Amino acid sequence: MPASEGFKNRALEELIEWLRIPSVSSLPEHKADVERAGEYVRAALDKAGMTRTELIRRGQGHPMVYAEWLGAPGKPTVLFYGHYDVQPTDPLDEWKSPPFEPEIRGNDIFARGTSDDKGQTWILVKAVQWMIERDGRLPVNVKFILEGEEEAGGEAITAYVGEKPARLAADVVVICDTEMFAPEMPTICTGLRGIVYGEIHVEGPRQDLHSGVYGGAAPNPLMAIAEILTALKDRDGRILVPGFYDRVVKPSADEQAAWATLPFNEAEYLEKEVGSTSLTGEPGFSVFERTWSRPTFEVHGIKGGFTGEGAKTVIPARAVAKVSMRLVADQDPDEAVGQAATAIEAACPKGVKAKFVLLHDAGPSLVDTSNRFVQASASAMEEVFGRKTVYMRSGGSIPIVGTFLENMGIPSVLMGFGLPDDNIHSPNEKFHLPNFFRGIDAVARFLEKLG
Amino acid sequence: MPASEGFKNRALEELIEWLRIPSVSSLPEHKADVERAGEYVRAALDKAGMTRTELIRRGQGHPMVYAEWLGAPGKPTVLFYGHYDVQPTDPLDEWKSPPFEPEIRGNDIFARGTSDDKGQTWILVKAVQWMIERDGRLPVNVKFILEGEEEAGGEAITAYVGEKPARLAADVVVICDTEMFAPEMPTICTGLRGIVYGEIHVEGPRQDLHSGVYGGAAPNPLMAIAEILTALKDRDGRILVPGFYDRVVKPSADEQAAWATLPFNEAEYLEKEVGSTSLTGEPGFSVFERTWSRPTFEVHGIKGGFTGEGAKTVIPARAVAKVSMRLVADQDPDEAVGQAATAIEAACPKGVKAKFVLLHDAGPSLVDTSNRFVQASASAMEEVFGRKTVYMRSGGSIPIVGTFLENMGIPSVLMGFGLPDDNIHSPNEKFHLPNFFRGIDAVARFLEKLG
Repeated sequence: MPASEGFKNRALEELIEWLRIPSVSSLPEHKADVERAGEYVRAALDKAGMTRTELIRRGQGHPMVYAEWLGAPGKPTVLFYGHYDVQPTDPLDEWKSPPFEPEIRGNDIFARGTSDDKGQTWILVKAVQWMIERDGRLPVNVKFILEGEEEAGGEAITAYVGEKPARLAADVVVICDTEMFAPEMPTICTGLRGIVYGEIHVEGPRQDLHSGVYGGAAPNPLMAIAEILTALKDRDGRILVPGFYDRVVKPSADEQAAWATLPFNEAEYLEKEVGSTSLTGEPGFSVFERTWSRPTFEVHGIKGGFTGEGAKTVIPARAVAKVSMRLVADQDPDEAVGQAATAIEAACPKGVKAKFVLLHDAGPSLVDTSNRFVQASASAMEEVFGRKTVYMRSGGSIPIVGTFLENMGIPSVLMGFGLPDDNIHSPNEKFHLPNFFRGIDAVARFLEKLG
Repeated sequence: MPASEGFKNRALEELIEWLRIPSVSSLPEHKADVERAGEYVRAALDKAGMTRTELIRRGQGHPMVYAEWLGAPGKPTVLFYGHYDVQPTDPLDEWKSPPFEPEIRGNDIFARGTSDDKGQTWILVKAVQWMIERDGRLPVNVKFILEGEEEAGGEAITAYVGEKPARLAADVVVICDTEMFAPEMPTICTGLRGIVYGEIHVEGPRQDLHSGVYGGAAPNPLMAIAEILTALKDRDGRILVPGFYDRVVKPSADEQAAWATLPFNEAEYLEKEVGSTSLTGEPGFSVFERTWSRPTFEVHGIKGGFTGEGAKTVIPARAVAKVSMRLVADQDPDEAVGQAATAIEAACPKGVKAKFVLLHDAGPSLVDTSNRFVQASASAMEEVFGRKTVYMRSGGSIPIVGTFLENMGIPSVLMGFGLPDDNIHSPNEKFHLPNFFRGIDAVARFLEKLG
């Protein structure tokens, strides 16, 4: 039985109150707001019928919100993850309605955090509340861990999960923080790419040199960066780091078949999403493969020398390139770091020294479409949406998924209710209200199926 | 007959007064100081016996100083060029004595502008004054054109020379703004490299993209820059731009023989001047050839994406590389620009657009060691220094030399009295006083020989 109209409307009113709190985690001036937003959802979980709720603090960051209802011994335990902090709002003048004054226009609610991730987190809270109000209990054990600094690095929760706390023990993590492939198309995201982000540091002359006096005899660290980058990846996008592809798992036949059913027009993707003269990437692989199941090597910035207005004829003493590798199952971040470091040193031209400095990493994740939690989730969404659930992956990284898997051995099911045009991290973020309402029913149905 | 001790000591005292004026042309707050320094040298030229002196203004920049003595009809006309503006002084705390409070320590005078170029310009003024005081006349016709914005682009004089004013007509330009190859080694610089400085603009996606979502399918303009740069120059430093070397003139046997006599230790050069793990550059060419008589292609900075602290996973919409080519005789800047632009477009990878944008250029210059003005200068310096004059070139560019040659057809003789350790453009700039005094005699002797 789906939640009543009245319940859903009240849920929306409460969500609107929550969205009014500007919980921008990366801006120190909003520290108290983030705290207030955390307390708001803790109180809501308490009111929802969870038997224990708590703000958990680790270090100087924003608190995590923990809640539990463990009244179904012998049944599986589901750990819900979400985040109650939001991105900054600039450029503010591009918002049609103020980011923290939620406004419903048509079937969408506009405000910062509607889709990412307060709106989706609220689905979880309200699904649980509806079931407890209706049945007096839940069919499975449920825990919540919500963080307040996902948009600001998520250090506290990473450290906390690393401690393997018994209270987070569960059979599966369920996350509503992704999007549907297209409107009206219930979607489960079965894989995320991992990431290794670091810097290539190149040292050449002892000090900056004049390119007139020394050009022709002195090594140029910026040119060395170019030489190293092109030695690591060819013009077709094939990564030349030895061993890098060894552990890459080919998507299963089932997954490939599922992707083939997804509505996708490459010409439209090029024109509307990318906007370049052509797409690039490894020949022989589809766009889905290139962005979901193949690893990448990208350069994000190159520092060194002179980039101001006008001209300066400097051969810089050093240069730094910011680079990342997106990893796919079963690549291992530590191994990829080692491979990259070795390849960078091997590619280092004469006259300079080069090394790789790791900034952060996260493992890839992949869950089989035949996994029972995935199946239960797919089936639940199918019933509520009245359409077959599709499987996709994401080329991005949600490090917490890898953290749960690596540290506690718990797989994650990503049932997302956002839409591709939700403008997350941008002005005019919105959430599609029919997805909010159906999300509550889908999550409740999922828990019923597990019970 | 050399100038008297008394004359030289007074010349030094006046130079010290001139050095006290902080004529930093690139800093607007010193505009009045630059003007004052120009007026100081104009008045000195007047006092020296020049028959006409004038401040010449072109646009909003600092004035040029013009002076003439044309009382030797039938004799050659020498145009002396110099500049009375100086570089900024930061980092100020590295100066042992304040940059505008000249201090004599041992045989050196320390202050900003001592070597570059007030001290060397003062040699010219005082050589002329000494001859007029002694003989009541000069043996040749003499003109001065001194600029006040050499360290800030030199736009006014470039424009002025471009007008081919009759008053600058001369047989030779003499410039004291270079250095001797080594102490006690009278030196003429016979060649300068030209320069083409510009930017490679690369456009890829319509807007910045997330490297997780689009990595593998979207082109990356920063990577394209790396691919273009490595397509334009190989790891040995050989430039791959078609036609680029076609006009490059091999140094004459005489010049090569002269270079072979120069004291030079490559290991010491690597260790003390460059400070990298090894030198680089085209195999089969000496360091002198690589830095003096071979063209270069260098990258000075790469802009685009993210270079701040931490990590940002951006595929930037565009990127810009600042690059320069040093040209040697008989390369032509316009032709080199065209060659580079064509090569950049040809090297442009899939998915992006690339173009070359010129910022400024200047032609190379080369004067034969057998030129009569070079010979007179070499002989004059040899007499005064008591050692054979050596010939070198400079890998840098003095655009005014190319401007005089291209616009007015006048070759330049660069008789420099600086030393390699004069710290020009750096803290603790100095000038070796024995070179200042001998410079006055050498320039006077040069004029006598021409007369």
